[in-house]
Amino acid sequence: MISLNQITHADMAHVALGGAFLGTGGGGDPYIGKLMAEQAIAQNGPVPVIDVDALDDDALIIPVAMMGAPTVMLEKLPRGDEAVAAVRALEAVVGRKADAIFCIEAGGLNSTIPIAVASTLGLPIVDGDGMGRAFPELQMVSMTMSGISACPMTMADDKGNAVTMNTVDNLSTEKFARVITVEMGGAGLIALYPMTGKQAKAAVLRGSLSLIHAIGNIIAQEQAANRNCADRLASELNGVRLFEGRIVDVDRRTTGGFARGTALIDGLESNHGMKMKLHFQNEFLVAETDDGRPMATTPDLICLLDLETGVPITTEQMGYGFRVIVFGLPCDPKWRSEHGLDLVGPKYFGYEHTYVPIEDLSGSAI
Amino acid sequence: MISLNQITHADMAHVALGGAFLGTGGGGDPYIGKLMAEQAIAQNGPVPVIDVDALDDDALIIPVAMMGAPTVMLEKLPRGDEAVAAVRALEAVVGRKADAIFCIEAGGLNSTIPIAVASTLGLPIVDGDGMGRAFPELQMVSMTMSGISACPMTMADDKGNAVTMNTVDNLSTEKFARVITVEMGGAGLIALYPMTGKQAKAAVLRGSLSLIHAIGNIIAQEQAANRNCADRLASELNGVRLFEGRIVDVDRRTTGGFARGTALIDGLESNHGMKMKLHFQNEFLVAETDDGRPMATTPDLICLLDLETGVPITTEQMGYGFRVIVFGLPCDPKWRSEHGLDLVGPKYFGYEHTYVPIEDLSGSAI
Repeated sequence: MISLNQITHADMAHVALGGAFLGTGGGGDPYIGKLMAEQAIAQNGPVPVIDVDALDDDALIIPVAMMGAPTVMLEKLPRGDEAVAAVRALEAVVGRKADAIFCIEAGGLNSTIPIAVASTLGLPIVDGDGMGRAFPELQMVSMTMSGISACPMTMADDKGNAVTMNTVDNLSTEKFARVITVEMGGAGLIALYPMTGKQAKAAVLRGSLSLIHAIGNIIAQEQAANRNCADRLASELNGVRLFEGRIVDVDRRTTGGFARGTALIDGLESNHGMKMKLHFQNEFLVAETDDGRPMATTPDLICLLDLETGVPITTEQMGYGFRVIVFGLPCDPKWRSEHGLDLVGPKYFGYEHTYVPIEDLSGSAI
Repeated sequence: MISLNQITHADMAHVALGGAFLGTGGGGDPYIGKLMAEQAIAQNGPVPVIDVDALDDDALIIPVAMMGAPTVMLEKLPRGDEAVAAVRALEAVVGRKADAIFCIEAGGLNSTIPIAVASTLGLPIVDGDGMGRAFPELQMVSMTMSGISACPMTMADDKGNAVTMNTVDNLSTEKFARVITVEMGGAGLIALYPMTGKQAKAAVLRGSLSLIHAIGNIIAQEQAANRNCADRLASELNGVRLFEGRIVDVDRRTTGGFARGTALIDGLESNHGMKMKLHFQNEFLVAETDDGRPMATTPDLICLLDLETGVPITTEQMGYGFRVIVFGLPCDPKWRSEHGLDLVGPKYFGYEHTYVPIEDLSGSAI
């Protein structure tokens, strides 16, 4: 995989596509962030991408993200300067300027919004992230496993409301920030996990933007060649084509700041006569057969692709009759540690399944 | 009424008693704050009380309070330094030290906790408040009517969590802070409405601590003389003895950070054969006959007194069989303005009644 060294206007299409893929159905639709980033890049020029290991030890890295339910994010467009306001507020609390912007997650809206912010602020963006995918809660990052505090954290909304918090642990940050996003109308812009370059080197996942870009490139190339990208993604990313079918039911509700629900898929082609059920909480978290046997579970990635175009489908886009491929991908090895599974394993989300790596699960025929 | 010029250890008993009365059933039991204040005064000496009109125009006045459901406050004792932490955090945001502490409400816990804080910080306390009673929401203060922002506002809890907010209006401050108190376990300590002496002179209600102390004094004197205080309070405060009876039903639930419910009272003596229903949301807000005719409504004060001792009873203390006097008192004239009634009139709380001053309502026989 080639390392990105800058993000141009033209790159944003691939970044948004790859970001939607690693969004695993959540993370918000990258499209809004793509538009914001394209506009910012048109004004300010390409955004330099900096390798994690090239960071100065004492550089200040500030991750920025949109927090809330993706269903709301679709309807509540950021005004554009809330994210910058959140970063500026965090800089004021920390007492110094950021040297680079960071993506808290490598998926969805939060893989594109930070690029817009970096461009607007004239800062580089780090080629890394805290999840290697999207997750629904803010403590679910590799930084938590490294003992880095999410606080001080700042939040800003489109009306001009601003909140700063210092909590005793990252789970408390999530709980406090989550209820605030609900009061902000369902979503807010946040800056958090301020960290030094030295901390970042010890804590974050590498190469995330390069990976996102490469994935977007593959999807676009295969689309141009009228091929579904699933086979090529499977071979290049060590992924698994889990299921092929038609969505016959979607049960979706927005509660407590999350979009939760299930989708039922009727098998097509080689999966004819079978069913798969997807469970999601912003992101797809469990793929199981209709008798409840897991085919893939969090923290491994479950992605939904359009059967014709290969374009990733988010949980809020899903509708009756969609013909889809369910695609699985092993997560970053950090998530398979005991601490990692405590943070993002199936049990944390209330599912009964014990985590088994996708490569072991998918060995068994569905 | 004599103006207090300091609050001694001995004064705290009267302050707590008068605070419970003006708490109109809510504001939290003043007892915890009384203990905290007594302990602080024993260590640091009496707390100077400063007249609103004696404040320097450029003095910084910081109100401090406990926010949350009184039912929770009873079980979740403040550790003692959270309120000081909230004030210190607000001082840091404002960029200067407080010159005086202020009571946001003249009732319950929030008429005693600020005295403990003032003593601990070696600051005077202002002889005024923002309500002239207790109300359940933080925008319900005379400062809101004068256009003073509740923000910057700081919050602290017993675990060490800290939140700072800057919202676009005081109703938003209430909404944001309310959900945070729920995440803090039901209650948190807050510092807000930082204002100058000049602003305070234009915005706040006068003589509140002197009034509280005088009321406590009357209750204690009458108690010592084996008389119920209701008659003397009625004549000295221009109040109304609304009803006398026995509590036969209490419906109480804690939802959304509030203690809400109703109490039904069966008439005794001259009220024999009649019933009165009290509605509360932390504080008593509506007193009505059993056919729904209002006898007193917010913003006028509705206080519940023990029939034997005259001691005020809070909404969370009420129990089946309590023999009580329902006592009404006209509110500060500021609340009877259009803006005042928008903030705290019956309609704001979801009651159908149009506000009619208590002195007009109580003229009609029950």
